[in-house]
Amino acid sequence: MTTNMQVLLASRPTGWVTEENFKTVSTPVPAPADGQVLVRNHYLSLDPYMRGRMNDTKSYAAKQEIDAVMVGGTVGEVIESKNPKFKAGDIVVGAYGWQQYGCSDGAGLNKVDVSRVPMSAYLGVIGMPGVTAWVGLLDICQPKAGETVVVSAASGAVGSAVGQIAKLKGCRAVGIAGGKEKCDYVVNELGFDACVDYKAGRLRQDLKAATPDGIDCYFENVGGEILDAVLARTNAFSRVAVCGLISQYNATEPYGVKTFQAILVNRIKVQGFIVSDRLNLWPPALKDLADWVASGKLKYRETIAQGLENAPKAFIGLLKGQNFGKQLVKLI
Amino acid sequence: MTTNMQVLLASRPTGWVTEENFKTVSTPVPAPADGQVLVRNHYLSLDPYMRGRMNDTKSYAAKQEIDAVMVGGTVGEVIESKNPKFKAGDIVVGAYGWQQYGCSDGAGLNKVDVSRVPMSAYLGVIGMPGVTAWVGLLDICQPKAGETVVVSAASGAVGSAVGQIAKLKGCRAVGIAGGKEKCDYVVNELGFDACVDYKAGRLRQDLKAATPDGIDCYFENVGGEILDAVLARTNAFSRVAVCGLISQYNATEPYGVKTFQAILVNRIKVQGFIVSDRLNLWPPALKDLADWVASGKLKYRETIAQGLENAPKAFIGLLKGQNFGKQLVKLI
Repeated sequence: MTTNMQVLLASRPTGWVTEENFKTVSTPVPAPADGQVLVRNHYLSLDPYMRGRMNDTKSYAAKQEIDAVMVGGTVGEVIESKNPKFKAGDIVVGAYGWQQYGCSDGAGLNKVDVSRVPMSAYLGVIGMPGVTAWVGLLDICQPKAGETVVVSAASGAVGSAVGQIAKLKGCRAVGIAGGKEKCDYVVNELGFDACVDYKAGRLRQDLKAATPDGIDCYFENVGGEILDAVLARTNAFSRVAVCGLISQYNATEPYGVKTFQAILVNRIKVQGFIVSDRLNLWPPALKDLADWVASGKLKYRETIAQGLENAPKAFIGLLKGQNFGKQLVKLI
Repeated sequence: MTTNMQVLLASRPTGWVTEENFKTVSTPVPAPADGQVLVRNHYLSLDPYMRGRMNDTKSYAAKQEIDAVMVGGTVGEVIESKNPKFKAGDIVVGAYGWQQYGCSDGAGLNKVDVSRVPMSAYLGVIGMPGVTAWVGLLDICQPKAGETVVVSAASGAVGSAVGQIAKLKGCRAVGIAGGKEKCDYVVNELGFDACVDYKAGRLRQDLKAATPDGIDCYFENVGGEILDAVLARTNAFSRVAVCGLISQYNATEPYGVKTFQAILVNRIKVQGFIVSDRLNLWPPALKDLADWVASGKLKYRETIAQGLENAPKAFIGLLKGQNFGKQLVKLI
């Protein structure tokens, strides 16, 4: 194989992303110059934040440029190195984006230990999504043992870690997920105390039943009606970490949050965060996560699309909640 | 005078408060028992929080009971004391509610120094509203010199202090108020850098012009469309102290906040607070406030209704923004 397949942003979506917003091209595999390293990517990470980058609006990150390779985290193997810090065979995590090969000076590339866990975990539970769960729950929400922690998108890469970490800290963990299969997984496999199926049509009643002592911490991934239902169940001095609002990313009209007054009445702290703002917390978070995964205390699940050409479809599925656990694309 | 006029809650309002929700009664002036003190109230404080107490809903404070004297802060003179801590002639701040006399064991009653400032100031700028401004701005928002601080209800008892304290801390202070007269006062008398008249029909354009560098801190008193307009102008890592949502207190349908996503994109911290939760901050706040008032750095304005019988009308006017500065009722 001498070509490097790449997926570029072809056009910016209005509302829902479609496959036509992407285009696939083949370019020559780059030859590393002195100081550079060439990596064959094994897995590409698909994450909701990418939807925001596709917009032409002010945001916390630089927008994705048209006709440029889509941004994204990758893990793969060094196949040629002219950089003394790396050698062929090293397994490295980086951000080469939606392409089969990456070539760079090695900045931001980290070698990972695949003796205890498979390399794909470094894009999920021991990577950005896991650190996101750790930071939002432990640094922002700071739950105390015995408190009730609720997390939306509970079977996803971030949500599944949030609930399990809450359990490790002695909390009652309640998930919100779409469909019986995901809810069963969250309770039976991951050990949450309860999970509310928001597609069942009884969101408020089911959430009330699952949180008999109210809600002390909420880890928000979705927004919309679920946010309103949760805020209505909050206790005094509760904390809300706003990590994502995936229900809004493709909406043409923003949802109007009707329970804002709960923030006043219950003296809630609501805080939005982006894990890349908190680089100082990555080392302690990654250490905890790796230990918990290696010792079997922190489980994870992956949905793996096969082949880069299927990345756009898999990404659209992710935005619609069709994945189950961490969404990856296997590139070889 | 041997009777004690009192205003009781007659019925709970649905939507807007009306004068029919209150009733006025005359009772005998109580005779203090051993350990008790009898106070003739000179001023009654009217505050937005009272609207919440009138509802039969869960809130941070006990609800106002039907046929009980309306709650409220008062300042007055001890006219008879059988408590060694007080003597006739002492000027005391307490919470005797909407009545001409108060009689109690003295718990929660504080003597105040009226040599430097008039007693009414202890219900406003050197009292609960002033401490509210101090706590929400300095403890929650923590503005840095050079940042832009926006406050709604800017000519009110709390808002007028927020903007002046922001100026004392080296910030750009921008008010939002209803009408040209209030805005002129906020800028010309209180020294804010700008004030947006939300009644002028150009809220978003005027707010943008008044905040050329965006908004770093927002002290929220009103909610609704003003909240949406402000959140849309926030900078990264901005802070919002939610002190009140007066536009919602008489609404039968809650306003839907459409800019919640700004909390994520800008990593905003939004925190609701009630000043009575933070008793440890009252002493340093009151010291600052008294010093600033005595030295002329912190100005205030009062709207004074004459006679307890006019308290219901004045309270309804407060909820409609008809007051200008701190709303008081003069009782003698």
